[in-house]
Amino acid sequence: MPDLQIDILIDAIKARKDPTVVGLDTRIDYIPPEMTKGLSPTEAILAYDKSIVDAVADIIPAAKIQIAYFEMLGPDGIDLLKETISIVRRSGMSVILDAKRGDIGSTASAYSEAYLKDGAELASDFLTVNPYFGTDGVKPFIDDCASTGRGLFVLVKTSNPSSGELQDILTDDGRPLYERVADRVKSWGSGTIGRHGYSSIGAVVGATYPEQGASLRRSMPNTFFLVPGYGAQGASAKDISGCFDGEGSGAIVNASRSILLAYRKHGGTPADAARKEAIRMRDDIASAIKI
Amino acid sequence: MPDLQIDILIDAIKARKDPTVVGLDTRIDYIPPEMTKGLSPTEAILAYDKSIVDAVADIIPAAKIQIAYFEMLGPDGIDLLKETISIVRRSGMSVILDAKRGDIGSTASAYSEAYLKDGAELASDFLTVNPYFGTDGVKPFIDDCASTGRGLFVLVKTSNPSSGELQDILTDDGRPLYERVADRVKSWGSGTIGRHGYSSIGAVVGATYPEQGASLRRSMPNTFFLVPGYGAQGASAKDISGCFDGEGSGAIVNASRSILLAYRKHGGTPADAARKEAIRMRDDIASAIKI
Repeated sequence: MPDLQIDILIDAIKARKDPTVVGLDTRIDYIPPEMTKGLSPTEAILAYDKSIVDAVADIIPAAKIQIAYFEMLGPDGIDLLKETISIVRRSGMSVILDAKRGDIGSTASAYSEAYLKDGAELASDFLTVNPYFGTDGVKPFIDDCASTGRGLFVLVKTSNPSSGELQDILTDDGRPLYERVADRVKSWGSGTIGRHGYSSIGAVVGATYPEQGASLRRSMPNTFFLVPGYGAQGASAKDISGCFDGEGSGAIVNASRSILLAYRKHGGTPADAARKEAIRMRDDIASAIKI
Repeated sequence: MPDLQIDILIDAIKARKDPTVVGLDTRIDYIPPEMTKGLSPTEAILAYDKSIVDAVADIIPAAKIQIAYFEMLGPDGIDLLKETISIVRRSGMSVILDAKRGDIGSTASAYSEAYLKDGAELASDFLTVNPYFGTDGVKPFIDDCASTGRGLFVLVKTSNPSSGELQDILTDDGRPLYERVADRVKSWGSGTIGRHGYSSIGAVVGATYPEQGASLRRSMPNTFFLVPGYGAQGASAKDISGCFDGEGSGAIVNASRSILLAYRKHGGTPADAARKEAIRMRDDIASAIKI
């Protein structure tokens, strides 16, 4: 049985006393023009992301790589993705690939082969997954997680303004749809609960819906949460506090633009500003939860 | 206002009297060993897919490219995807990129930039999209479709065995969730209805659930359906007949493995067998619907 990546991630969070993840979704126009001179777009983004990763890797335990920003660059973007995964891995941070894949079983197997198999060029420690297809669309991912120790974060309640259109629809047992999804995620994760009491199969729970997050925390005691929505999307440390358990564990909070673009707010180099923002975010969260 | 790809697709279906789409999701082990000799996996798959496309392009009006099978091959797979899109485009068939993307608005914009913008390396005529995020996660795609004439197929009722776990959950108005999703898809498509009466914003409706397909056909008169599940997944021509309107329009039926692997059933070269299977499928569907 391999070490579970969820255990490794929780160890790193505890060691750093920082339950945050830096989101890497750099667009070329995020980078100060003087840092792009003489470089191709992919070279510039790689150098930029490396400077951010190097600046925060001793503070922040994980990086969430948003694959859309790499796909946007065409075939070169996937070479860049491979190098970015490698940079994050060498930094010692966990790699969360935010791809939100979901399909019928045979296709899900192909996606899982791309991102969750030992030896895959784009292998990551965690993958985000969409639950719309139900169990047979998620099972290939779960099976590969069980055999490799990798993990998933399955969309439950997303952070965006219109997430409620489908996710909050009331169902025939009186509960909103996202709670029915939560039931599935719990059962999908029941076979891979690690030594910290959390499963390899986690959930995406948006910081922008604090009451729902707190309610899900209570109903999913063995499910670790990936929490987007802090910072640029508007949620505060208080908003995310309900996603944590009584011991200050159970969740990891993503910040992308607030770290990547910290230099525009705080001045200084992007790397220095990112580090300052990472420390500020860590301390801000520590003020709202005990860790 | 650009020509709508949905109109171009429907014109091609009518001209060929064939509402089918060939699914390209070739795995290396689909290819007879003698056709892979001396070739890298991506070279072998490209040659194979080109032979299939060339064999069926005068019969079948569109190809559905399943991106998972390209992502599975790592960065080289995306170069292969680009060449495959180009081969399909040169054949005169419409390109449906089956990627089932879905995310918050800013990330959806990045995906849309990858696949729906004029000049993008991986630009396709249609993209499949997941509705779980609600309107703001789909709007960037819809906006790009409105400005470029491209189209979407949004997941409504999928073809896989466990699709009902979430999609069939009964909601507070007594209808299953997928019908609530269908309502959204209708409204998302109301601004881009083409000259055949169908919108640029279509729906994925699995052939394996014939009653639901027929019911959705009645409730979504302006929504074109992409219908997976025929052939290898088990649905018959009779099963898909309810997805069509009274004039034999309104849907396009996908077959992937039954065409790609026809040679294993019928013998002969893969290209000849694919052509025979394409003709058989066309005639089979014509026996169940008037077109």
